[in-house]
Amino acid sequence: MRITVPAGGVGAARFLRGLKAEVPGAEITVIGNTGDDITLFGLHVSPDLDTVMYTLGGGIDEEQGWGRAGDSRTVLSELAAYGAGPGWFGLGDLDIATHLHRTSMLSAGLPLSAVTTVLCQRWQPGVRLLPMTDDRVETHVVLASDEGERRAGVGTERGGGTSMVHFQEWWVRMGAQVPATGFVFAGAEQASPAPGVLEAIAEADVILMPPSNPVVSIGTILAVSGIAEAMRAKTVVGVSPIIGGAPVRGMADKCLAALGVAASAAGVAAHYGPGLLDGWLVDEQDKAAADAPELAGITVRAVPLYMSSPAATAAIARAALDLALELHG
Amino acid sequence: MRITVPAGGVGAARFLRGLKAEVPGAEITVIGNTGDDITLFGLHVSPDLDTVMYTLGGGIDEEQGWGRAGDSRTVLSELAAYGAGPGWFGLGDLDIATHLHRTSMLSAGLPLSAVTTVLCQRWQPGVRLLPMTDDRVETHVVLASDEGERRAGVGTERGGGTSMVHFQEWWVRMGAQVPATGFVFAGAEQASPAPGVLEAIAEADVILMPPSNPVVSIGTILAVSGIAEAMRAKTVVGVSPIIGGAPVRGMADKCLAALGVAASAAGVAAHYGPGLLDGWLVDEQDKAAADAPELAGITVRAVPLYMSSPAATAAIARAALDLALELHG
Repeated sequence: MRITVPAGGVGAARFLRGLKAEVPGAEITVIGNTGDDITLFGLHVSPDLDTVMYTLGGGIDEEQGWGRAGDSRTVLSELAAYGAGPGWFGLGDLDIATHLHRTSMLSAGLPLSAVTTVLCQRWQPGVRLLPMTDDRVETHVVLASDEGERRAGVGTERGGGTSMVHFQEWWVRMGAQVPATGFVFAGAEQASPAPGVLEAIAEADVILMPPSNPVVSIGTILAVSGIAEAMRAKTVVGVSPIIGGAPVRGMADKCLAALGVAASAAGVAAHYGPGLLDGWLVDEQDKAAADAPELAGITVRAVPLYMSSPAATAAIARAALDLALELHG
Repeated sequence: MRITVPAGGVGAARFLRGLKAEVPGAEITVIGNTGDDITLFGLHVSPDLDTVMYTLGGGIDEEQGWGRAGDSRTVLSELAAYGAGPGWFGLGDLDIATHLHRTSMLSAGLPLSAVTTVLCQRWQPGVRLLPMTDDRVETHVVLASDEGERRAGVGTERGGGTSMVHFQEWWVRMGAQVPATGFVFAGAEQASPAPGVLEAIAEADVILMPPSNPVVSIGTILAVSGIAEAMRAKTVVGVSPIIGGAPVRGMADKCLAALGVAASAAGVAAHYGPGLLDGWLVDEQDKAAADAPELAGITVRAVPLYMSSPAATAAIARAALDLALELHG
């Protein structure tokens, strides 16, 4: 069985671990979001790719959800002693080795997809991990107003009356506390899917969308030219990132609010637009979404969606896969 | 008093510490060798500049002579786990922070001299530290033969029957055990002295040459266009790196042998060529150098030259300075 999974960070990584446990024989291809990638101290950091790779490869900091288990912060502290910033992005020493190796290979001319393959040779995540694109795509955040920014006491890049910041600056540094009015996936329209991405979609039996951030994780992947179109031709089942009207993890509601999308199971599904989702797995608390008029044509199924343990997560992955296989026929 | 000091690594750094202790009021400008610079994992490493900076700034690993005190090897071990090489060059985590910050600033377009100034703002070495040039100069080593290389069991770059390796590969990886027949200071002739270098020579009351490697430290600096000429117009006193016919530290004899220069106090002084040295401080064991015909015109003085303690090192620096001031008149 071939399963293709567009993936963000922590939620996707845990979902994938559950999926692997449920269907160990499946060929799973992961299309990772790279819109969160950022250059720090000259190092190319790919947070979502690394979270998937470390989680499935057994190196993740389980409590934190990202970064390496047992990591130290020697290099980062020392950079701070030089007055070199930013200090708001956590980079452990073990993690820095990954970024050094990645950056070194990118500088030598390897595309990100090839670099990711090399890094995965060590981690053996048990899935094929592809970046959504080898081109540079960066998610930027449009801030509501200079007023909001001033209240948060942070400085940002400005241009023509609009304040824009890199996604990581908004998400990590500002804690998404400054109201946003939109997101710009800079470069996405011009970007080509990485080698293997469109094939992995076309050849998949089913596509499963984990409970990643619908705007800045899944949304970014769908913004890459050709990916959404390819997915609309397939059986796609998504797992709602909402439980009882609030995001399970992270601050997805801040992203949804910026776009005027309700932080509800129905709101998120509708946000993906017509023709993409065939099935939508919602939490039992949100089963009323099945009656939402905007979800006409989408098969909604309610199960417990809280990934409280590896077993619970595996059950969610199984439910998503079962629904997809039923719809695939 | 203005003193300018062309400097290599460990020996120069210790000499400079002694000099600072002896003449705390002096304005000391250090012209650092950058021919040993190497790019590792995409990081620009400047071993000699860092050894001077860390030693005078109080951060050096005293026992080792280079690198940072109390450093760890987390990043390097992790890079090895990725199979990323080379593993033969020791880079600690604290040290890597320096290289990351340097590389980041170089990538942003700052010249090495400005980058060095920024790094020194933290370390406050108490001297003005200038790289010999902002241009790229790399010391390469011509190996005696493929035979020597094969016996050493190492692979090297080859070209047209001659084997050439980066200085660090020969020095660190091969331990200078493969016979060399010459050195190429690639880029030196085309390189311009860094801003301030020629001025620091012209405006100096005296120039002191510490007991650095005469071939690959001092020799590299002298190879940069214009530096040797500027120095010949000044009062220059050198400290012999030889004690009793052998180098005090390091493997300078391997470098001298490659050029057919005797590893003797007289041999090294003669190697610098006519007109450069006005005074030559030799060890008491080597006082016969005063009678060497090839040192005619150079004032030779014998003192104990073993830098066995900070006090002994300060006394050597004082003796060199006294001789220079006498000759300067």
